[in-house]
Amino acid sequence: MKKSLLALAALTAFAGVASAQSSVTLFGIVDLNARSTKTGSSTVKSLSQDGNASSRLGFRGVEDLGGGMRAGFWIEGAINPDTGTPGGQSWQRRSTVSLMGGFGEVRLGRDYTPSFWNYTVFDPFGTNGVASMAQVVNGSLGSGATTFVRANNTIGYFLPAMGGLYGQVQVAAGENVTGNKYIGARLGYAGGPVNVAGAFGKTYRTGTMVDDYTDMNVGASFKLSFMTLMGQYSKRDYSTLDQTTYLIGALVPIGSGTFKASYAKSDGSTVANDATLIGLGYVYDLSKRTAVYAQFAKADRTGSANDVTAYEFGVRHSF
Amino acid sequence: MKKSLLALAALTAFAGVASAQSSVTLFGIVDLNARSTKTGSSTVKSLSQDGNASSRLGFRGVEDLGGGMRAGFWIEGAINPDTGTPGGQSWQRRSTVSLMGGFGEVRLGRDYTPSFWNYTVFDPFGTNGVASMAQVVNGSLGSGATTFVRANNTIGYFLPAMGGLYGQVQVAAGENVTGNKYIGARLGYAGGPVNVAGAFGKTYRTGTMVDDYTDMNVGASFKLSFMTLMGQYSKRDYSTLDQTTYLIGALVPIGSGTFKASYAKSDGSTVANDATLIGLGYVYDLSKRTAVYAQFAKADRTGSANDVTAYEFGVRHSF
Amino acid sequence: MKKSLLALAALTAFAGVASAQSSVTLFGIVDLNARSTKTGSSTVKSLSQDGNASSRLGFRGVEDLGGGMRAGFWIEGAINPDTGTPGGQSWQRRSTVSLMGGFGEVRLGRDYTPSFWNYTVFDPFGTNGVASMAQVVNGSLGSGATTFVRANNTIGYFLPAMGGLYGQVQVAAGENVTGNKYIGARLGYAGGPVNVAGAFGKTYRTGTMVDDYTDMNVGASFKLSFMTLMGQYSKRDYSTLDQTTYLIGALVPIGSGTFKASYAKSDGSTVANDATLIGLGYVYDLSKRTAVYAQFAKADRTGSANDVTAYEFGVRHSF
Repeated sequence: MKKSLLALAALTAFAGVASAQSSVTLFGIVDLNARSTKTGSSTVKSLSQDGNASSRLGFRGVEDLGGGMRAGFWIEGAINPDTGTPGGQSWQRRSTVSLMGGFGEVRLGRDYTPSFWNYTVFDPFGTNGVASMAQVVNGSLGSGATTFVRANNTIGYFLPAMGGLYGQVQVAAGENVTGNKYIGARLGYAGGPVNVAGAFGKTYRTGTMVDDYTDMNVGASFKLSFMTLMGQYSKRDYSTLDQTTYLIGALVPIGSGTFKASYAKSDGSTVANDATLIGLGYVYDLSKRTAVYAQFAKADRTGSANDVTAYEFGVRHSF
Repeated sequence: MKKSLLALAALTAFAGVASAQSSVTLFGIVDLNARSTKTGSSTVKSLSQDGNASSRLGFRGVEDLGGGMRAGFWIEGAINPDTGTPGGQSWQRRSTVSLMGGFGEVRLGRDYTPSFWNYTVFDPFGTNGVASMAQVVNGSLGSGATTFVRANNTIGYFLPAMGGLYGQVQVAAGENVTGNKYIGARLGYAGGPVNVAGAFGKTYRTGTMVDDYTDMNVGASFKLSFMTLMGQYSKRDYSTLDQTTYLIGALVPIGSGTFKASYAKSDGSTVANDATLIGLGYVYDLSKRTAVYAQFAKADRTGSANDVTAYEFGVRHSF
Repeated sequence: MKKSLLALAALTAFAGVASAQSSVTLFGIVDLNARSTKTGSSTVKSLSQDGNASSRLGFRGVEDLGGGMRAGFWIEGAINPDTGTPGGQSWQRRSTVSLMGGFGEVRLGRDYTPSFWNYTVFDPFGTNGVASMAQVVNGSLGSGATTFVRANNTIGYFLPAMGGLYGQVQVAAGENVTGNKYIGARLGYAGGPVNVAGAFGKTYRTGTMVDDYTDMNVGASFKLSFMTLMGQYSKRDYSTLDQTTYLIGALVPIGSGTFKASYAKSDGSTVANDATLIGLGYVYDLSKRTAVYAQFAKADRTGSANDVTAYEFGVRHSF
């Protein structure tokens, strides 16, 4: 069920008065799990979260302005249901206002960076939980760049629907804050069984940074009759440091559930950024909105005596 | 009026399409009062809050999964309407996800502890305002335990409806945070005019604690034709310290209002935890959702020259 | 479209059951702009916010208690969509509970002060954006008073509708916090083309303050056939410091938009509080809820080598 707040529109409609196609939607996810993480010889059991999807609360809406134009807003914040504490910034997952039309979409505010999307779209585990490739990606190389996932103060442009082609560009004002001055772009094609995209992001040397930080990545997925294969390759650079990472993975629908598997490998210019990760998981959908899941991961970190073995059992509920 | 966001379900129903019995509810309470508190010879007049109920904002929902199974979530945070400041943690009043069925309920997240409930259920003033017994209860004895009311990182199980029997058990992962590793249980019976329950909670020695902290309590209420009598007894222990507290109280409905009275007495192993409290109050219901109230309390603290005399006049509005 | 959550009331009505005239409304504004600010010889380009209206998220509601009595609540917090960070206090824009009837309104909680309103009502730019007179007003004169816009812990009374007369008084409990103990009043008349009001506020010497802080202001607007003229005068005093400010401005509707212009001048007892400001702007309404705007300001600060030239282009969307 959607929670779009169309109540008064409904009432108005019953009274025979035309109403614009506008709506405000309340939405969110609560995802909690019982987790065990063994690092080296030490095991920690925890009630953790976000194994399958990031817990959140948000409000979004679209207003029809007529003539094919629309305005929209989106404010979404992380919630930490394992403790109830706020998730970093209050609406930091996304806070935007948009104007949309035949020309595409202009979006202002705090938003995901173009160079982030391939990491999550082309990983069977997305960027959540113990088995995600994100566990072995160094998203700043110590540069102080804060743009791996999102950036503050952005102006972005998204292409309109053009066959299967999709794309976006984004600039973020630096405003004298270390690591936020950014420019990035992403271009992709999704059609039939294929989805493929490439992206590039550059975080300008600002504040305490000694060089620009860059992120280049490509990903692809192919849907077969009984499974979806996917893979991605990425490279991050900062001063004398770099890290390349690739992943191959698969999603196999089985009944009401999906089996997930992935293998990821990171190679860094320093051994601290070398790692391999094997991920296995099963998500069982109790409904479109609710799932239970079990996930397992084994990470070998070349430069550390502390390899990680982790598993988690959880419940994810969207509203 | 409930604010359950069933709008689209309604719209869907009008279009003849079946919709699941699902809902998301926005709810809250704003409770503000003018308060005078005389401590020793010093009087402070304030615009205070939560004299009748704790101010809050929350979202909760239940989804019917079919076959008797349901999923639910609940995120609820304190609001401080006297200043607008956030109430400690953001959704700290409760942040949970649940699976429910004939087997009862499994609940994960930040939640009330089983050992808390008797304190509020069997006090005419609950745990709010100047006249609540909570004013003379020491809920941690300096131990650092944070589990008197709620705990982070909990997994809980609730019995299904079984005649009047009710009960729950809960464990909270410590996650190396002082005072949060907890186990507790509560069992009760409510039938006819009687409600009686007992609970026990143990907070394990973690971090800076030097011993386990325990809380044992029992309470009962009995509904007569013209009033409800209630009483409770509790004992908290930590290392060489302990405190026992008992209360007797009454709720007397008069017209659209309720008269409240209580007498509570705490005895501690140190004189600083000795106190008596007399509470008197009247709550007048303007509607099911809105009430005005007046409350008076006199606390004698044996180990202090600063006895407290306090009264408050307030408005409580639920939405 | 309003987002009042009347859904269940609607459903109830369809079932033929009477329902009270009660509602809870979710509301908000997202306002983001591209801004350039030149201070002295240094130019900063930024993605900024609140050029046309203050970004916010809130919930408010009114319950009909019968007999002409109503109860209401209002919790509203700032959002910072350019970064997603919380806006100071969580529901700090307003957090109140009210009882309303033929006698007027009694309101408790954190609220705007009576002495604030004339500043925003009688400025073409309100108190938002680079061109607002607020840019050259010193709202505390270093006193530590926090009551220029809002106060914590207030009890207020509003006159009922009486012809065009309107008015309010407010006291704020000090609660031993520097700069919050306040008393203020506002009285005005709005009828036909005229709106005129005067207000006075006094923040008592508390905490680190060495004297009372006072704010006296008057404002008026007059609606002509093709434009609205407005002006205001204000004086703030603290110990040996004072600042007087006046403004003349105009709003000129042109098609679906409004042209705005203002001239403001501040004179202080010290040269640091001397300034002049010229503001020009245009707001184009794409709908009742959505507007794009361009605003320009030039501020000459007598006591500073750093004059300010600023402009901004933005989108404001209300929900």
